Amino acid sequence: MADYRVPRDDMQFLLQDVFQVHQDWSTFAALAELDIDTAQAVIDEAGKLAETLIAPNCRAADEEGVSFQDGRVTTPKGYREQFKQLAEGGWVGVTANPEYGGMGLPKSISAQYEEMLCAADISFSLYPGLTAGAIMTLDLHGSDELKSTYLPKLIAGEWTGTMCLTEPHAGTDLGIIRSKANPLDDGSYELSGTKIFITGGEHDLVDNIVHLVLAKLPDAPPGTKGISLFVVPKFLVNADGSLGERNGVHCGSIEHKMGIHASATCVMNFDGAKAWLVGEPHKGLPAMFTMMNYERLGVGIQGLGAAARSYQTALEYAQERLQGRGAKATQDKAKEADPLLVHGDIRRMLLTMKAFVEGGRAFSTYVGQQLDRAKYSTDDSERERADALVALLTPIAKAFLTDTGLESTIIGQQVLGGHGYVREWGQEQLVRDCRIAQIYEGTNGIQALDLLGRKVVGSRGQLLQPLIADIEELLAEPQQELSREYEQLAAAVDLMKATTSHVLEQVANGDENVINSVAVEYLHLVGYVSFGYMWLRMAKVAEPLLTERAYLGSKVKTAKFYFARLLPRIESLAVAIRDGSESLYLHENGEF
Amino acid sequence: MADYRVPRDDMQFLLQDVFQVHQDWSTFAALAELDIDTAQAVIDEAGKLAETLIAPNCRAADEEGVSFQDGRVTTPKGYREQFKQLAEGGWVGVTANPEYGGMGLPKSISAQYEEMLCAADISFSLYPGLTAGAIMTLDLHGSDELKSTYLPKLIAGEWTGTMCLTEPHAGTDLGIIRSKANPLDDGSYELSGTKIFITGGEHDLVDNIVHLVLAKLPDAPPGTKGISLFVVPKFLVNADGSLGERNGVHCGSIEHKMGIHASATCVMNFDGAKAWLVGEPHKGLPAMFTMMNYERLGVGIQGLGAAARSYQTALEYAQERLQGRGAKATQDKAKEADPLLVHGDIRRMLLTMKAFVEGGRAFSTYVGQQLDRAKYSTDDSERERADALVALLTPIAKAFLTDTGLESTIIGQQVLGGHGYVREWGQEQLVRDCRIAQIYEGTNGIQALDLLGRKVVGSRGQLLQPLIADIEELLAEPQQELSREYEQLAAAVDLMKATTSHVLEQVANGDENVINSVAVEYLHLVGYVSFGYMWLRMAKVAEPLLTERAYLGSKVKTAKFYFARLLPRIESLAVAIRDGSESLYLHENGEF
Repeated sequence: MADYRVPRDDMQFLLQDVFQVHQDWSTFAALAELDIDTAQAVIDEAGKLAETLIAPNCRAADEEGVSFQDGRVTTPKGYREQFKQLAEGGWVGVTANPEYGGMGLPKSISAQYEEMLCAADISFSLYPGLTAGAIMTLDLHGSDELKSTYLPKLIAGEWTGTMCLTEPHAGTDLGIIRSKANPLDDGSYELSGTKIFITGGEHDLVDNIVHLVLAKLPDAPPGTKGISLFVVPKFLVNADGSLGERNGVHCGSIEHKMGIHASATCVMNFDGAKAWLVGEPHKGLPAMFTMMNYERLGVGIQGLGAAARSYQTALEYAQERLQGRGAKATQDKAKEADPLLVHGDIRRMLLTMKAFVEGGRAFSTYVGQQLDRAKYSTDDSERERADALVALLTPIAKAFLTDTGLESTIIGQQVLGGHGYVREWGQEQLVRDCRIAQIYEGTNGIQALDLLGRKVVGSRGQLLQPLIADIEELLAEPQQELSREYEQLAAAVDLMKATTSHVLEQVANGDENVINSVAVEYLHLVGYVSFGYMWLRMAKVAEPLLTERAYLGSKVKTAKFYFARLLPRIESLAVAIRDGSESLYLHENGEF
Repeated sequence: MADYRVPRDDMQFLLQDVFQVHQDWSTFAALAELDIDTAQAVIDEAGKLAETLIAPNCRAADEEGVSFQDGRVTTPKGYREQFKQLAEGGWVGVTANPEYGGMGLPKSISAQYEEMLCAADISFSLYPGLTAGAIMTLDLHGSDELKSTYLPKLIAGEWTGTMCLTEPHAGTDLGIIRSKANPLDDGSYELSGTKIFITGGEHDLVDNIVHLVLAKLPDAPPGTKGISLFVVPKFLVNADGSLGERNGVHCGSIEHKMGIHASATCVMNFDGAKAWLVGEPHKGLPAMFTMMNYERLGVGIQGLGAAARSYQTALEYAQERLQGRGAKATQDKAKEADPLLVHGDIRRMLLTMKAFVEGGRAFSTYVGQQLDRAKYSTDDSERERADALVALLTPIAKAFLTDTGLESTIIGQQVLGGHGYVREWGQEQLVRDCRIAQIYEGTNGIQALDLLGRKVVGSRGQLLQPLIADIEELLAEPQQELSREYEQLAAAVDLMKATTSHVLEQVANGDENVINSVAVEYLHLVGYVSFGYMWLRMAKVAEPLLTERAYLGSKVKTAKFYFARLLPRIESLAVAIRDGSESLYLHENGEF
């Protein structure tokens, strides 16, 4: 597997120049002392771990995988040490509450850290990733007692966390879960049921695992409004914080999967396990969604990280591999062939990856900035606006970063030809590992339904406004160099508005099926428009900096590529969306 | 892994009703005795092997994979017996010359057989598949002595064949291969060199392996015009046909790959191996391309077969899995949830697969029919026309069937959610196995270059004419039910013509990079138009047959879906193509 190098320059450019996140920080009480140099140093430290400790072990860990015997899961060689070093660096609690030992860094920084970790090894990244989600959920919804019992250990990386939602018969449809929790006299509960696809449900990295579990109380109303959230530790915790007896939760087996072979995906059996309620009875789903939303940007970043690494390898290969001849003027007669990079189709592939990777990095930083404003701003209207943007952008971040991530990693294989299909260069592993990110934490189809149904139609289109306003603010200051692209983005926004109105009309006309019939294409349309916005923002900021920073040379050029070759995909998407549900419901169920 | 069922009805519909291949046969001397019922019976026999012998072993074979020790390759359990039964059924020589024991069946039948085999197990299909290519090449280019030595054994499946092209430094660019062949006094040659990525280069299925190898003679001119083709058997063949001494060709190692784990992908070392020239000196590449062209439709069919199987599984799952609720009128209140199939996004995914699979099956049959006309017709103008169509359609068949095949198998995973990512249902294996088909036998980028560069621009657009004429013949008889789709296809043909003219203009203006800069999008554009043609042909033929054959009920409906949701992709492709090479060559090589 090729080496991984953290794209420090690009991350710095985004944080400092494009989004100027430090200007936000200076207005947030909790972050007032953070400056951009500290942030950069922090990123640099994480980058060293990713580059020198985690990435080099990625292929070996994939080949060894996790193994299961007698209820125990063994992780690949090196993982314990990697996790230990990550925990010691404070990275498990990178955004966590400082009151319990967290670093309390903003999400805009954490997004860069997460990208590195995913680029280095998606399987490994899941152990700290799920733990971070559990930390956030407990911090927001747990009682003080639960928090003081679990948070310090989770944040320090001495224990890890999971989220237990899916059951054999209930994946997307959580309303029909069957796990039950019965109250005990001491205020705790006895929880029973089977959960599947539990990432990190069992492993040997740390001494205790803290499961966050959805289950139903005896008096639960039916459906999603009768689901409660519980914490179920693998080992009970004594009053002094030491580990007590083994709880009634056990791993029954692990899954054999296409990829993320080094991540333990477990069937977890809860047999009267001792459990504690988190938050209010029957309000587990909204509480779990705190975690889901946090994870969803994180899952999007998995797609981005895989794509970023695949791009590095593909570019390196295309620069070094000599094969065929370019245009006459560019031929190097001293060699028997020219580098792959001279060929138009290779450049098309590399630029597609580059446009998705750097556009995606900008987008995840943009979402991170909104998450920070929503969390830290003391200005009510800024906070509300950021909240609205987060609601809108989260499903896009999850689905569009993973869809473009998969497309990028597949292209990254193709650039290497047969060498992309064999394990040696690592390109095929990135495809396999990236693929799951389109599925878990709510499939990308579900993200699209969330975006178009709950968010856009649910607000009668109003939730799009802050995004449109941000884009129009940029478009209000056109510049000569990219005038064609400015016009194109304006037209794309108009198309997005018109398409949205069309869907709203069909809904108003009583078509119950239309939202779920066009949601995926709609999410892609908004995704391409958003990436267009990212590319123009970056190009605009890069231009005056070109002379001082050579690495920015390609920003304007890649923006032009994006507008010429990728943004036009919205034309076809808009036509498909306008068809509505009609062509999908001609078939009777038995007629396929 | 879910069961596989051969789509007999659809195959029959295509052969008998849509393409009426038996009408062709009755005019071909060599096929005059073949009737449609015999063809159907033949397909049925192959289908039984695929369904009951090969498909059930597919997942186990993937898990066991091939193994390598001391130069020997061991195939998975069951493969020897499968190959034996296939060979005994005459299937290795399904299209081969009856003079040497072949069945001499037309390609339109063989295309169906190949689809079944690929749907059942792509890894396994490669052993007979490469052998069939070797048979064809030897039959067309070998001397009578070579033919009588090798063809009967290869056709009977007692020996297998390979094609040895790629070297470590030379994949797409065969002009720079280094393998050498020196003439010996007895008229044979001594061949040395290293070949990589050799499918079936070594294995334990049969007693001898016949390698077709590209190498350079001492007096070879440089580049692709100095390449000769040789036959190199693993064991030399005695005058009486028995096996003699071991030849100087050995397997050095096997590749570890993303998929096709049960196919041996070998590094082959030729150390002064005894070799015999096939055809003329220095004319090996055109000879090998006989085989490559034959294989290219076959590789396209790999994408189709994987997609077809994935569709069956996804549909079955969507019909059985209860999850969520559909529109009010369709809800089944007696159950806790409705089948997945009620949801718009699930229908979008299934119909996309169905449109690609059935459209692709029609397209491969159409290409098969042209191959048959080119081979068997006694009418010169029909033969020439078919030759032209084959030249045009071959790169589309290879690339578009595998690109839509991968898209379909990825969707087939997505329908199953997490269950599509684990091995149990087999959906993830289909993605991994299908992925290589976009790479080998000339990457899909190279197919696109062949289509747009050699074929379309090379003929100044003339080679498109027979395809356009076929489409316009259909469009000349519009019918009421699909009038909107007829108009849409006419517009699509116009767009294809206009886009072609635009590229021809840019070439005429001296842009050396334009062809390779837009070739992939161009191939997709022609592919979508071709599938549109297939869908209207099928729908038109299906309509009057609906009452007698219920399974045709969905043809018109799926055609409508294709035109509403998939054909519109050409809009974006055309915009991207019009950009030409401009946005790809803004970057300097070092500036990416």
